[in-house]
Amino acid sequence: MATTQGQVITCKAAVAWEANKPLSIEDVQVAPPQAGEVRIKILFTALCHTDAYTWSGKDPEGLFPCILGHEAAGIVESVGEGVTEVQPGDHVIPCYQAECRECKFCKSGKTNLCGKVRGATGVGVMMNDRKSRFSINGKPIYHFMGTSTFSQYTVVHDVSVAKIDPQAPLEKVCLLGCGVPTGLGAVWNTAKVEPGSTVAVFGLGTVGLAVAEGAKAAGASRIIGVDIDSKKFDIAKKFGATEFVNPKDHDKPIQQVLIDLTDGGVDYSFECIGNVSVMRAALECCHKGWGTSVIVGVAASGQEISTRPFQLVTGRVWKGTAFGGFKSRSQVPWLVDKYMKKEIKVDEYITHTMTLGDINEAFDLMHEGGCLRCVLEMHA
Amino acid sequence: MATTQGQVITCKAAVAWEANKPLSIEDVQVAPPQAGEVRIKILFTALCHTDAYTWSGKDPEGLFPCILGHEAAGIVESVGEGVTEVQPGDHVIPCYQAECRECKFCKSGKTNLCGKVRGATGVGVMMNDRKSRFSINGKPIYHFMGTSTFSQYTVVHDVSVAKIDPQAPLEKVCLLGCGVPTGLGAVWNTAKVEPGSTVAVFGLGTVGLAVAEGAKAAGASRIIGVDIDSKKFDIAKKFGATEFVNPKDHDKPIQQVLIDLTDGGVDYSFECIGNVSVMRAALECCHKGWGTSVIVGVAASGQEISTRPFQLVTGRVWKGTAFGGFKSRSQVPWLVDKYMKKEIKVDEYITHTMTLGDINEAFDLMHEGGCLRCVLEMHA
Ligand SMILES: NC(=O)c1ccc[n+]([C@@H]2O[C@H](COP(=O)([O-])OP(=O)(O)OC[C@H]3O[C@@H](n4cnc5c(N)ncnc54)[C@H](O)[C@@H]3O)[C@@H](O)[C@H]2O)c1
Ligand SMILES: NC(=O)c1ccc[n+]([C@@H]2O[C@H](COP(=O)([O-])OP(=O)(O)OC[C@H]3O[C@@H](n4cnc5c(N)ncnc54)[C@H](O)[C@@H]3O)[C@@H](O)[C@H]2O)c1
Ligand SMILES: [Zn+2]
Ligand SMILES: [Zn+2]
Ligand SMILES: [Zn+2]
Ligand SMILES: [Zn+2]
Repeated sequence: MATTQGQVITCKAAVAWEANKPLSIEDVQVAPPQAGEVRIKILFTALCHTDAYTWSGKDPEGLFPCILGHEAAGIVESVGEGVTEVQPGDHVIPCYQAECRECKFCKSGKTNLCGKVRGATGVGVMMNDRKSRFSINGKPIYHFMGTSTFSQYTVVHDVSVAKIDPQAPLEKVCLLGCGVPTGLGAVWNTAKVEPGSTVAVFGLGTVGLAVAEGAKAAGASRIIGVDIDSKKFDIAKKFGATEFVNPKDHDKPIQQVLIDLTDGGVDYSFECIGNVSVMRAALECCHKGWGTSVIVGVAASGQEISTRPFQLVTGRVWKGTAFGGFKSRSQVPWLVDKYMKKEIKVDEYITHTMTLGDINEAFDLMHEGGCLRCVLEMHA
Repeated sequence: MATTQGQVITCKAAVAWEANKPLSIEDVQVAPPQAGEVRIKILFTALCHTDAYTWSGKDPEGLFPCILGHEAAGIVESVGEGVTEVQPGDHVIPCYQAECRECKFCKSGKTNLCGKVRGATGVGVMMNDRKSRFSINGKPIYHFMGTSTFSQYTVVHDVSVAKIDPQAPLEKVCLLGCGVPTGLGAVWNTAKVEPGSTVAVFGLGTVGLAVAEGAKAAGASRIIGVDIDSKKFDIAKKFGATEFVNPKDHDKPIQQVLIDLTDGGVDYSFECIGNVSVMRAALECCHKGWGTSVIVGVAASGQEISTRPFQLVTGRVWKGTAFGGFKSRSQVPWLVDKYMKKEIKVDEYITHTMTLGDINEAFDLMHEGGCLRCVLEMHA
């Protein structure tokens, strides 16, 4: 590895030249990490809906050309000046949610939303010189979410790197970079579901299934899975869901169906779709007096949630979660350890494996009901 | 007193014959309390916006003719069969929010919203026979909020009666039946404001001032009062507010004004007006990552709150409160004791005193900035 340190690396990456056009596999130049930066050889990456959303052009903050991807695992290739917590050879998961341990947010003890590098990652550049480390023949290509894992090599801020157990299979634990922790943490950190609770999960994709899994681990007595695709119900059973409701089978609004089913409403609900009408239903199916609804899904830009204020005055609580409230650098390694001890599932979410070259096909798969997570091998 | 027990009492009451017509002082027949009921001689009652709201006809659940009123104090005249916790002569505060200690809500340990008598009080009758105890020449007059304190005598369910220290001045502590506990409890029970917090209070009427007072007691370091009536600022200082913002003095949206003033937003905000746009502003002026907004004001029927879900996904929490989360029968007596020990203010909220006969004039006063609470002496 010593040969590449300090050098520009030319490698393959999937570049989004513009919104909604197929990604194209290009030879990309990846500059060496500057102070406080880490260059990572990405071995495996999964695809998530946030990638598809930005790629679609619907994200008003999306910048093109860019390299998408944020759910991945790899090995540190080299580090910039002043980087002390990781070194070449370390196995790592890049984290779109940074954790600097120094900013107002990190020190608050109340949130996992670190503010340190957001001003740069939000606009597709690195903090040090506010430039990109990616280029093609001198033309800069924007970073995405501070991770850009659809490249064989990427450069990230040191506050965005979680060092993990080198024994962990990277082709699996790459999933611990986004969807699975989001669902588990929504239950454990944001809602804090107690034993015996009744839970409703709207949307049974990877995130919703992880909510079901987290709720089961938290001792929930009823876990009601809600999806318009009944094919999800069989798999959801394996993740802990105990009952199923397909809104299409009912004439009544889905919130009323759930209230009737639970003698007044659920203790906790989770919206794992990104649909603002479902977000409202998820709140309104909560029990008067204490029901708490957590928004996990990401709605399209500009859309708004609404309800009658009486819903809140009578005791319901409306919350949301980003990365399940997990502190990334501190807790992703802990999640990896839990996986190694077989305390949380990961393998079960992987329905497809492909290579970087198949990435457009992999995106097509996301729209199929049978696909949860598709993992790409980056150096095949 | 023994002479009236078991008898119909004829006394004066302010009757709302129909929406928006002046209340009329009538001779009303008040039937004796049935099983589980308590007849109370009301000595003092204050006026609250909920009375005005129902009276205005905007409350779709309002029933006419009725006897309004729900912030009062009095003395038990007689009790029905099976009533053990109060007896004639006890000093009491009628509580529109019941506490039965037996229902699912009371036993949950998570809410003060008791479900026991709501099915009756919600439709203006008593639970025992689903009839009213008020009539005029045989024509029934509906109850209101299970309290109907604009009558010299009223009948309430035993689960709606808080027995208080007989030394407490009833002409003051009647306020502990609604507005003051609502504001204090929003801070102490619903938001659980910690020492050092930054707080914004929207609306500086009785409820908002009680929020300021509660926040000061909780150790908040900054208490920012927001009102469109700058006359409220002087009085709010006495209740603990440290800074003031009049939205009319700014071109920017009020949420942005507060975010700028507090380096990113407040830790807690409280809407004490009943305006859905202000409810949105109160949420959006909260700090990313942890800011919590509590809806206290009651909006007009049919109105909806809305925001972008991103506000919640990035860590803000939206809640509401009814009677400040206080368990009425258990905690109103405790609030009376706190008042007796001079730990909470009450006298300072009373800006006017009148008699039952002046009730229409008292309602007019509510629309004047100078009025906080007007207390009516019922037997003058
Ligand atoms: N808050 C965060 O930090 C965070 C992190 C990762 C993902 N997300 C978001 O979580 C959401 C879910 O992600 P995923 O990967 O599980 O998605 P997914 O597409 O795999 O799953 C969504 C599920 O919802 C179902 N669905 C769609 N419309 C429905 C409706 N009206 N009623 C009921 N079910 C419906 C679909 O059939 C599907 O099973 C996305 O919006 C994603 O952007 C948020
Ligand atoms: N949740 C509960 O249990 C509960 C209990 C009691 C009262 N309430 C509600 O609380 C609210 C406040 O009650 P109150 O008695 O203090 O009312 P109030 O009318 O005395 O006070 C309202 C204040 O808000 C100010 N205001 C009006 N519009 C404003 C705006 N756009 N921006 C800023 N300030 C504005 C007014 O100038 C006034 O000072 C009412 O809606 C009432 O129904 C709720
Ligand atoms: Zn993701
Ligand atoms: Zn930080
Ligand atoms: Zn009131
Ligand atoms: Zn009860």
